[in-house]
Amino acid sequence: MFAAYAESFSTDEPLAGLRLGERPEPEVPDGWTTVTVKAASLNHHDLFSLRGVGLREESLPMILGCDAAGLDEDGNEVVVHAVISDPSWRGDETLDPKRSLLSERYQGTLADRVAVPRGNVVPKPASLSFAEAACLPTAWLTAYRMLFTRGDFKAGDTVLVQGAGGGVATAAITLARAGGLKVLATSRDEAKRARALEIGAHEVYESGERLPVKVDGVIETVGKATWGHSVKSLRPGGRLVTSGHTSGPDIGAELTRIFFTQLDVVGSTMGTRSELASLVTMLDATGVRPLIDRTMPLEEAMDGFAAMRDGELFGKIVFSRP
Amino acid sequence: MFAAYAESFSTDEPLAGLRLGERPEPEVPDGWTTVTVKAASLNHHDLFSLRGVGLREESLPMILGCDAAGLDEDGNEVVVHAVISDPSWRGDETLDPKRSLLSERYQGTLADRVAVPRGNVVPKPASLSFAEAACLPTAWLTAYRMLFTRGDFKAGDTVLVQGAGGGVATAAITLARAGGLKVLATSRDEAKRARALEIGAHEVYESGERLPVKVDGVIETVGKATWGHSVKSLRPGGRLVTSGHTSGPDIGAELTRIFFTQLDVVGSTMGTRSELASLVTMLDATGVRPLIDRTMPLEEAMDGFAAMRDGELFGKIVFSRP
Amino acid sequence: MFAAYAESFSTDEPLAGLRLGERPEPEVPDGWTTVTVKAASLNHHDLFSLRGVGLREESLPMILGCDAAGLDEDGNEVVVHAVISDPSWRGDETLDPKRSLLSERYQGTLADRVAVPRGNVVPKPASLSFAEAACLPTAWLTAYRMLFTRGDFKAGDTVLVQGAGGGVATAAITLARAGGLKVLATSRDEAKRARALEIGAHEVYESGERLPVKVDGVIETVGKATWGHSVKSLRPGGRLVTSGHTSGPDIGAELTRIFFTQLDVVGSTMGTRSELASLVTMLDATGVRPLIDRTMPLEEAMDGFAAMRDGELFGKIVFSRP
Amino acid sequence: MFAAYAESFSTDEPLAGLRLGERPEPEVPDGWTTVTVKAASLNHHDLFSLRGVGLREESLPMILGCDAAGLDEDGNEVVVHAVISDPSWRGDETLDPKRSLLSERYQGTLADRVAVPRGNVVPKPASLSFAEAACLPTAWLTAYRMLFTRGDFKAGDTVLVQGAGGGVATAAITLARAGGLKVLATSRDEAKRARALEIGAHEVYESGERLPVKVDGVIETVGKATWGHSVKSLRPGGRLVTSGHTSGPDIGAELTRIFFTQLDVVGSTMGTRSELASLVTMLDATGVRPLIDRTMPLEEAMDGFAAMRDGELFGKIVFSRP
Repeated sequence: MFAAYAESFSTDEPLAGLRLGERPEPEVPDGWTTVTVKAASLNHHDLFSLRGVGLREESLPMILGCDAAGLDEDGNEVVVHAVISDPSWRGDETLDPKRSLLSERYQGTLADRVAVPRGNVVPKPASLSFAEAACLPTAWLTAYRMLFTRGDFKAGDTVLVQGAGGGVATAAITLARAGGLKVLATSRDEAKRARALEIGAHEVYESGERLPVKVDGVIETVGKATWGHSVKSLRPGGRLVTSGHTSGPDIGAELTRIFFTQLDVVGSTMGTRSELASLVTMLDATGVRPLIDRTMPLEEAMDGFAAMRDGELFGKIVFSRP
Repeated sequence: MFAAYAESFSTDEPLAGLRLGERPEPEVPDGWTTVTVKAASLNHHDLFSLRGVGLREESLPMILGCDAAGLDEDGNEVVVHAVISDPSWRGDETLDPKRSLLSERYQGTLADRVAVPRGNVVPKPASLSFAEAACLPTAWLTAYRMLFTRGDFKAGDTVLVQGAGGGVATAAITLARAGGLKVLATSRDEAKRARALEIGAHEVYESGERLPVKVDGVIETVGKATWGHSVKSLRPGGRLVTSGHTSGPDIGAELTRIFFTQLDVVGSTMGTRSELASLVTMLDATGVRPLIDRTMPLEEAMDGFAAMRDGELFGKIVFSRP
Repeated sequence: MFAAYAESFSTDEPLAGLRLGERPEPEVPDGWTTVTVKAASLNHHDLFSLRGVGLREESLPMILGCDAAGLDEDGNEVVVHAVISDPSWRGDETLDPKRSLLSERYQGTLADRVAVPRGNVVPKPASLSFAEAACLPTAWLTAYRMLFTRGDFKAGDTVLVQGAGGGVATAAITLARAGGLKVLATSRDEAKRARALEIGAHEVYESGERLPVKVDGVIETVGKATWGHSVKSLRPGGRLVTSGHTSGPDIGAELTRIFFTQLDVVGSTMGTRSELASLVTMLDATGVRPLIDRTMPLEEAMDGFAAMRDGELFGKIVFSRP
Repeated sequence: MFAAYAESFSTDEPLAGLRLGERPEPEVPDGWTTVTVKAASLNHHDLFSLRGVGLREESLPMILGCDAAGLDEDGNEVVVHAVISDPSWRGDETLDPKRSLLSERYQGTLADRVAVPRGNVVPKPASLSFAEAACLPTAWLTAYRMLFTRGDFKAGDTVLVQGAGGGVATAAITLARAGGLKVLATSRDEAKRARALEIGAHEVYESGERLPVKVDGVIETVGKATWGHSVKSLRPGGRLVTSGHTSGPDIGAELTRIFFTQLDVVGSTMGTRSELASLVTMLDATGVRPLIDRTMPLEEAMDGFAAMRDGELFGKIVFSRP
């Protein structure tokens, strides 16, 4: 079958090891199922894989891609959940220390077909196109879990989204707005602030600018550069949810404020199958859609990878299959 | 000052004891404040009071009205929180066994001025008119607490609202839709089902009709007539929130299903000051507004009470002050 | 291998279909493991199975037994978790509509060996004997989940356990006491009330007797006979947890009190693997142990079944293997 | 009336400003009540006050003391809750930005009588002596809230208490053990580790020593010196609760681990009236008692303050009144 896969690693030029061509049909262990891919989307995770981050030499060649939507073996339209937990794991899949994402240990989604455990597909409503559905399982799912599970934010809460340009941050702005929250966003970049307003933020601020109100929650993906501002912006008892740090992990000494104003600082990563199903329902119910920068046939994936590498994006890149 | 008040009770003709005229200025105990009323809204609670339900003979004359928006002593625009808890109470005000609503023990809001504890006012955002804000503290607050606190429903959940015609039910439909939930509603009445679709329901059904999916939650204000359907409609682990029963309290024998499918059945009544503040923020953030049937000067309150008694309403009746 | 199994059903004389003898070694599907049973305990569930309740004719012959402790394939001492969920299920196992208990769809624990999914074993600490550990996976796990997960009761809460004689109720009394709760218990029977005091209750009452305080929670396994008393005994905001009804499911019309005092009524059944692990840790940490009525070789199981049928028990019956 | 009070501040010699002698009867605002003190206990907070930390010059002279038990105006035995929130505050008292502790803005408990809001007393059970009850409202309440509210730990969880010597840490060890948790404790000091075992720890470790298991929770009052160890000791999804930092607030860069293993880091300070009532019930129900180093008449308070200053303590110092 046709696929986009990593044949080798290169830190400097990740596209050097990217190949488009024939790969064997996926193996389908007992309890797994095969999804015929109709659309798959690209993530920074795929560039990291080509750089050898999170992927081992001995796993090559590895089909890339975490996100996909397509048809299950009975022809049902489905979205693929990318978190593969151990069969002996019970409870929240994202807490399994042995979990992996598609394209780390098991072949990924940038292919004609992908094999996943039967529990890793979620029905796709007709209101979502395959391309739209294929955008959800990584950044959007991460944002959903941050807001509604780990953050436990509810309609009427006020939430601050730091670093409005990132993939998780933009998803968080859109989802928070659609969930009835008041949304404040920051960015160093004026264009990104303007864009944040377009996709749902009520108010935007320069990074580090003092906010007019204390917020119930903060969505943190920046780290060092915004951490102090995040902590100071919270009301007593407020909650900061972090899923990464694009500016580095050194968050300094905010401990006194954390205990004295009784803050929650909670980590979050990816999301469960159940959360993916809720996210899909939310998009169906609200009409909100992920922003797609461009859609192209998988055969032209090299162009898509190049665009992501060069940062020429405003939204997701989707690869379609006929 | 001018006020609408109950002078006597009458079960058959509640308006017989309603008086419009002068009443003494409110007493303002230590720690209380006076709100100059700009708008106040009418509730069935006011008709009940005129019938002598929840109000004692020795409390008469009693100014009616639970809901109001106006100006505090410093001229700030505020919404009044109607739940008065004991000063020695700590924690959730609605759990205080000694709590009362305005117009039960303390003079109500259908007047030029109303006195309330300082903690019982919430800032009104400029985006909400006084009339809109005056609709919130009772039915809308009840619906907000049912959905987002007691129900703990989140964006992407699917919720069933039984009896789509009632005040709490219509508020719940609107708020659930604005909070990113998928909303199913039932009514025996075709016109009410059509209206439910207009105000936000995604799908409507006849009472008792089998739903195409199991739901995460049910908003129950009907009781006997819908209880069995509510319990059967829930997914395992789902939650039913009840705040009353217009069709009677006899809910029969659903215990086996409750324990075997591990349902939550939770009671809810009114809401806290903090929830009122969140509700106000939610309306500010989403643009959603309560439906107002008509606005009239308080001097014409007799017509408003008559309209509510006769059931000629589609939304709230608001009394304005100059 | 040697096993105790149901060969046929009999409503009147459940022991008529009970056989002790050779059965084939268990099948071990991919992802399953075999546990060499050292001790297994008896439950009313096993008598129900012999009566044909919850078990189908075409499943016969079926090895009985839900609870066991023994050795896994590597010689580790383990406790078996009896809830078998579908491999495609994610999240809380007890919410899977397709779940079954050992001896319903898969062969049970009253045998030399039992096969279970790899995720269905929990390490047994050395401080617990095999016999003690074998008592935990059904009634004790049910009580643990009712108290600490579904009830969410914490040290310092006051809890009422209705019907102090039952298996779940006695486990609940012991666990609640060991968890730092204040424990009130009721029974119609004076001897059972005395026993309740011995195993940990602080105070005992006749069924229906008015309590001196309102309680934070109620553990309900009785149903009709105690329901009204349970609801009336709760403080505003209190929680009733139910896992069954030995006196019938007709719980009448307590709806007004449920919503007005904002009670939670929550169903609970069995428990998760994670809860079983916590229960085991709790016993290890507190020194609390399940009460064992008698231990006997599996070869003598007929006597054990007869004793349970005749109700001559005070604690669990355990069958040992060499 | 007789009282121990601060007349002036001294950083070097806190006892220089301590006076024992006559002070005016407390003022009793509307809604407040007077408690006749039978026992009051000493906290480091009192030494800090004498050093001028948290107390203003213009507030002097100030009667010291946060903790007390005594008789209310009707002769009922009560424990005093030290957190005074603003009358207009609603919800959790400890989140009120305007809250204060007794002896900060209002006169403290080291006196014949102390005035507090009516909501700030909790019934004392007969099973607790006045001296024992007087030990609870500060360190023990802090530990209770950390474990059972903010930590949300439940029976069967495993918890690590860092720095086993401190007042909150020792209370946490005792309460965790009495609440059915498995308790691991660390200290740099061998004597303190031995003592930790005596008061309830199951296992003790040197500071920074690798633990044999991952824990569900950590009770952190040390800060910089133990933070890295605390974070590394948690299982995925585990929770760290912090109420201070005796070794400094600089907690370094553990952000990657926090988000990737989805930890909760939550701040906690003091506790609510409702938590104090639960703590009192817990002690009544379990028989656990705070450790009292010595009890002396309030007239000899100078010796008690000196002993605390010199660190010659193993448990609380209690001052009694006749």
